[in-house]
Amino acid sequence: MNGNKFLLPKDLTGIYTDYYELSMAQGYFLNGMHEKRGVFDYFFRKNPFGGGYAIFAGLADFLDALEEFEFTNEALSYLRELNFTSEFIDYLKEFSFRGNIYSVREGEIVFPNEPILRVEASLTEAQIIETLLLNILNFETLIATKAARVKFAAKGRIVIDFGMRRAQGYASILASRAAVIGGFASTSNVAAAKIYNLKATGTMAHSWVQSFSDELTAFRKFVEIYPDNAILLVDTFNTLKSGVPNAITVAKELEQKGKKLFGIRLDSGDLAFLSKKARAALNSAGLNYVKIAASNQLDEYLIKSLLEQGAEIDAFGVGTNLVIGKPDAALDGVYKLAQLEESPKMKISENPEKMTLPGVKNVVRYFNGENKFFGDAIIKEGEKTPGVFFHPLFPERKKIVEGLENHTLLELTFKNGKRTNVRRNVDEISHYSAERLKLLDDSHKRFQYPHLYKVGISPDLQVLRDKLKKEFENYQEA
Amino acid sequence: MNGNKFLLPKDLTGIYTDYYELSMAQGYFLNGMHEKRGVFDYFFRKNPFGGGYAIFAGLADFLDALEEFEFTNEALSYLRELNFTSEFIDYLKEFSFRGNIYSVREGEIVFPNEPILRVEASLTEAQIIETLLLNILNFETLIATKAARVKFAAKGRIVIDFGMRRAQGYASILASRAAVIGGFASTSNVAAAKIYNLKATGTMAHSWVQSFSDELTAFRKFVEIYPDNAILLVDTFNTLKSGVPNAITVAKELEQKGKKLFGIRLDSGDLAFLSKKARAALNSAGLNYVKIAASNQLDEYLIKSLLEQGAEIDAFGVGTNLVIGKPDAALDGVYKLAQLEESPKMKISENPEKMTLPGVKNVVRYFNGENKFFGDAIIKEGEKTPGVFFHPLFPERKKIVEGLENHTLLELTFKNGKRTNVRRNVDEISHYSAERLKLLDDSHKRFQYPHLYKVGISPDLQVLRDKLKKEFENYQEA
Repeated sequence: MNGNKFLLPKDLTGIYTDYYELSMAQGYFLNGMHEKRGVFDYFFRKNPFGGGYAIFAGLADFLDALEEFEFTNEALSYLRELNFTSEFIDYLKEFSFRGNIYSVREGEIVFPNEPILRVEASLTEAQIIETLLLNILNFETLIATKAARVKFAAKGRIVIDFGMRRAQGYASILASRAAVIGGFASTSNVAAAKIYNLKATGTMAHSWVQSFSDELTAFRKFVEIYPDNAILLVDTFNTLKSGVPNAITVAKELEQKGKKLFGIRLDSGDLAFLSKKARAALNSAGLNYVKIAASNQLDEYLIKSLLEQGAEIDAFGVGTNLVIGKPDAALDGVYKLAQLEESPKMKISENPEKMTLPGVKNVVRYFNGENKFFGDAIIKEGEKTPGVFFHPLFPERKKIVEGLENHTLLELTFKNGKRTNVRRNVDEISHYSAERLKLLDDSHKRFQYPHLYKVGISPDLQVLRDKLKKEFENYQEA
Repeated sequence: MNGNKFLLPKDLTGIYTDYYELSMAQGYFLNGMHEKRGVFDYFFRKNPFGGGYAIFAGLADFLDALEEFEFTNEALSYLRELNFTSEFIDYLKEFSFRGNIYSVREGEIVFPNEPILRVEASLTEAQIIETLLLNILNFETLIATKAARVKFAAKGRIVIDFGMRRAQGYASILASRAAVIGGFASTSNVAAAKIYNLKATGTMAHSWVQSFSDELTAFRKFVEIYPDNAILLVDTFNTLKSGVPNAITVAKELEQKGKKLFGIRLDSGDLAFLSKKARAALNSAGLNYVKIAASNQLDEYLIKSLLEQGAEIDAFGVGTNLVIGKPDAALDGVYKLAQLEESPKMKISENPEKMTLPGVKNVVRYFNGENKFFGDAIIKEGEKTPGVFFHPLFPERKKIVEGLENHTLLELTFKNGKRTNVRRNVDEISHYSAERLKLLDDSHKRFQYPHLYKVGISPDLQVLRDKLKKEFENYQEA
């Protein structure tokens, strides 16, 4: 561990990659093409969870890893065992990432098909880092987006990450970070909290209650030690007949000592019904200040439904469904060659939606009259901000954006292998994300059939794309 | 990195846990209960993927982590910041896991509700390691099971892990390990291959083809460097009109040099149709030896269906759906208190299926006349092998197993904090798993409505369970 970073062991940094990245890199090297300059775009094709947007996350972790990217002697002797040539291994000895990276800010709201991050580097460098890039950015973007959806459903109530035990192994650390970027207040994950300076929180488990002669004793012993912030788990035996009455007894005893019970937690049964009954019981005992937390297989849909049914819940603990990004569990982010030396490149596909966009690009975000996001145009880097943009597949569908406020999204964050920006902490990123979410109309946040956010291509990019497509068609017919 | 282990950084080992584990542990400590001896069971309630079994994986990684489990000074100063008391922090300074662990062998076939692993330790130790245990075992068991399903669908063909870029961050390393335990032949994940001594493999990407003037040149340049094991990706432009004919040209050129093209890879389109056409084209050119690999959103269902439709595919590259364990993406494994000192404990639930089994237990596996698994009985540890076992909820449903071959599954693997068994490598585990799978009837491997494997409780365990249940009911009514 290195300060507030979560890093791989040194010997794994360079080889945290797919085998074919290395065999292709060796191929470029042996063909003398390894210093050719490539431009690659990172983008995804579909919003996760059938939603209307995604939150870009993972950038700082990716850049941290990139700064450490190297092939140690131990890694190189392993590659020798795999029969890589000694010339190539000598080349890897000196390897580090020396390219440039342009990226949207971490925490930004992003949409399908627009370049979120652009790598400009030698073909070898760009290729070898591909797997690392996709592995980190795909996952954290998925989880930050899930977190934002859950937070949206909770309508201002507190949401807490409880997912560590069901997370996919050590992915829990990145998951908890991304959860906070997406709007979670705290996490149960102590390791992640330490690394990223997140707030660590927790309540109690059933095993605590079972380790005492009875529930009331278990509660008393707990608040003796944690008089200021105890949250009592009330469902070990029977929530309404045993747990809540015992919590009330303990709360009244605490009051005698001038203290206040912080809260109770419901962890099974019908959370809408039980929370209303528990709230009423607490209130009749004059304990309106005692908070109710709830957990148990929660996700954005269940939270929405519970609140619609008048659940009296102040905080939601969300576990499995958050940290594994259920049901998607993966973001389909890809990394595609857009230019080689001076030649723009594109992938032509029999499926037009899988066609990529050629050349060095940026994204312009336009604002409407109410200072909300209006739409994004993908442009050729350096192109004058266009006053119109086109649907990528149906050019007759266009948007006039002349005169609208706008700014470009991709900025230089890595130059010749070094960070150009200050490294932002999770707090700042999370704050930025929350601010940007305010600028996204709620119609895009709807869970069912969200309003489609407009992402188009600029006139210049359209011309370039159509020219390359034409060349390819001529080549195919020839 | 430490030899062939994947370990967390030292400063994270002890705090890789949920916050409440530490606050409860402090509570036990301050109440003088921390040396009380607890017995906890690890088990899951439902087979993943709606299947008929699971493959237990992650044990060696978990035990490796447990051996390293400690609180460094840096971790302790963090806990001081979180307001843990100095007495408790002093206690954690000396903390290591000194308990016993009984476990089924890694790679074993396991079923719902049976204890797979049992921890006997001080309440504090048992509690603090809970999150780590669940985090690793849940994930690897999920992925090994997914891998076995995919391998089963492939009917003896080779399956290869391509999932690293879509894996949940650094979970990729555990995923690739578990994939091989479940039957995968190799992985694209170079880091995992190095750590666990797995076979690393790969083909080429579209970017390779795009980096040359044309596809034929790209193929020629590749086989120049990799004449013995090149797998050419044939779908960059058009699989049947361009990719396959170019691959044939290159294969014939290789033959002139006395070499053989190893294979081609299909990565889009209808893989059944394209593989049959590609096979026919290769065969007409006298290239019957060239293998066909296929990839693109594969899972066990798609592979089964492709083979039913006569696909001519020799190897399947499986990515996302494997390494994230789609669609489940998490196993519901839990860790429950079964005994405290000499008192058996059970969790009574309003939902009878969530009731736990009390006391110190083991599992006996019985074999039928054909030397296949017949069923498992959960017994009290030390109980004489029973001749009958009962359905856990419907005692009138029982199985007579008198005289059947049998053996117990849980064995001591950690004693007073030290490994008692030799540490098995992935190769051995994978081999064991394959052998055990042969003993499981195929009816349990069916994807839809698999035959339910019988897991029951022994007469002695039934008596104990019913006694505790009765006591609880009396207590409730009192």
